Amino acid sequence: MRKFLWLAAAALLIPPHARAAPPPPAPKTRSAAQIIKDAPDSDWVTIAPDDLLVMTLAPDAAGQPRRVVIQLLPAPFSQGWIGNIRRLATAHWWDNTAVYRVQDNFVAQFGDPDEDTPHAKPLPPGLAVMPESAYAARLPITTLSALTTRRITTETFDTTALFLNGWPMATARDIRENFIVDARTGKPLPPSTHQNVWPTHCYGTIGVGRNNSPDTGTGAELYAVIGTPPRQLDRNIAVVGRVIAGIEHLSSLPRGPAPMGMYGDKAKNTPILSIRLASALPPAQQPRLQSLSTTSDSFRDYVSARIHRRDSFYILSPGSADICNIPVPIRPAPDLSTP
Amino acid sequence: MRKFLWLAAAALLIPPHARAAPPPPAPKTRSAAQIIKDAPDSDWVTIAPDDLLVMTLAPDAAGQPRRVVIQLLPAPFSQGWIGNIRRLATAHWWDNTAVYRVQDNFVAQFGDPDEDTPHAKPLPPGLAVMPESAYAARLPITTLSALTTRRITTETFDTTALFLNGWPMATARDIRENFIVDARTGKPLPPSTHQNVWPTHCYGTIGVGRNNSPDTGTGAELYAVIGTPPRQLDRNIAVVGRVIAGIEHLSSLPRGPAPMGMYGDKAKNTPILSIRLASALPPAQQPRLQSLSTTSDSFRDYVSARIHRRDSFYILSPGSADICNIPVPIRPAPDLSTP
Repeated sequence: MRKFLWLAAAALLIPPHARAAPPPPAPKTRSAAQIIKDAPDSDWVTIAPDDLLVMTLAPDAAGQPRRVVIQLLPAPFSQGWIGNIRRLATAHWWDNTAVYRVQDNFVAQFGDPDEDTPHAKPLPPGLAVMPESAYAARLPITTLSALTTRRITTETFDTTALFLNGWPMATARDIRENFIVDARTGKPLPPSTHQNVWPTHCYGTIGVGRNNSPDTGTGAELYAVIGTPPRQLDRNIAVVGRVIAGIEHLSSLPRGPAPMGMYGDKAKNTPILSIRLASALPPAQQPRLQSLSTTSDSFRDYVSARIHRRDSFYILSPGSADICNIPVPIRPAPDLSTP
Repeated sequence: MRKFLWLAAAALLIPPHARAAPPPPAPKTRSAAQIIKDAPDSDWVTIAPDDLLVMTLAPDAAGQPRRVVIQLLPAPFSQGWIGNIRRLATAHWWDNTAVYRVQDNFVAQFGDPDEDTPHAKPLPPGLAVMPESAYAARLPITTLSALTTRRITTETFDTTALFLNGWPMATARDIRENFIVDARTGKPLPPSTHQNVWPTHCYGTIGVGRNNSPDTGTGAELYAVIGTPPRQLDRNIAVVGRVIAGIEHLSSLPRGPAPMGMYGDKAKNTPILSIRLASALPPAQQPRLQSLSTTSDSFRDYVSARIHRRDSFYILSPGSADICNIPVPIRPAPDLSTP
């Protein structure tokens, strides 16, 4: 009400020739899907084959091939584990391993089904051992402040969601900036220059299985999220990537009947024929995929459309959106998508 | 820092005999799973057979039966659509219908595959036509204030999450309470006594398919959420229930290759043999399930364990939780669960 009154008062101050101007443009009502379709090629980023893992599962019951494409998280996040993953893929370590756990509304996990037994598959030498602290990265606030939007829902009272370099992230609000006063001077402490940032667990996120802390896992046992975003795992497990094609080959697998979605019966596991870096495949077999640049105007409009839902299906706009309900758009590179 | 200083000052005021008291009890470290296991029988509520739908799908490829149990939402929510659903079940309307749409990370939808064609299956007479306004209910604030907790994440800046009568809900903060001043008196308007409340879309939620507004759907076409909570559907679609057993028979179905997860090819649909109210089944076939009372001490401890994650797997506690990441516990009624 007060806002309306203020606008009415302001209108009185506008010179007559300005008031005679043409009406403002109609509100943008393009759906998120239309915005993605309209995005110019310059707003898309081709994903380097060296940042892609190609997982080939055994064909399904109808003999259809099953290929899952995973994009690896960029620096400075989780690079120790990702180095291990590159090494494991190069050593063909995952050949003849399996998806051995599918827990409904949680994860599909894969790697060595005998991991916790005396018959565990030997790992290649030279894998890095990573500390818990590496689950997050400390980044300059100046690079972050422009990327956050208050209309992306904060998932906790101390964190803010943002997109950084193509990925959904969360960052802790530095408590010093608002609450802490220097006890000697009585003045607020200067704001810190850096802030912890970490990747969020959303649908399709790939993370590193581990046992209890201080074990942080090697990267040999991986899981894909196939349900409600398990945000409690943020900062407790290393996120290393996301499934960008073929997630349905994991999410539609039969759920394991044993505790934690384990199959128990090895005959029920889904065999993994291979996991390779795309750069190690013949060029014709390399997936050529692009992601919508999260600093592009198209992405800005896409986020707005996910938040405001102006298309005709909606009666009420939600007015905000969870970071995990704004998936970063992925498409085939155009030269392959043309018929 | 200030808090620590305050505690130190307070300690000086404690009489010596009090300081010699035994140490406080250890913090609760029971996992959410342990709390559910420990909950006394009196904290569980048996779900009436008249509030359950039993959906029987055709057996799977291995000949295994597939049964999905849906709990209907209690009054005062969505009762018009739920009345229609009871009528459709009683008329055996869903016999020989199908799951015809499975869209990854979104929904599995079922009903009449020919709904939008001239061959649509006739609906029974007497179905109610519901207004959009019925997507939410207006409830007294006094009954709501005790049920909310600030540690359950608010998903938008204007809403608060709560559990009401066993179900996850959201409610709009009444903007008048904080911001609006009576223009004539200059004084704040009195707080309103009622507030809109609506069920949230979480994993497993059952909602009513519809076309564009003002169509609100009959209840004949239903969907189950099988991915990221699509909270944008809140207040835009009628929620009528939730899957409480057998969700995996929907969530692990093959995804449809056509737009919106449609199968296109009818041979790919999953046949529905029947949907019945459990109360219409012979007693031996009625599912006997219980939900943990959301006003019980056990549920209070369970919510706390989902928020604080004190068990040994976690390095950092998230400190809050999304309402959709606190699923209401369900168990078989004890006399059936004993071997």
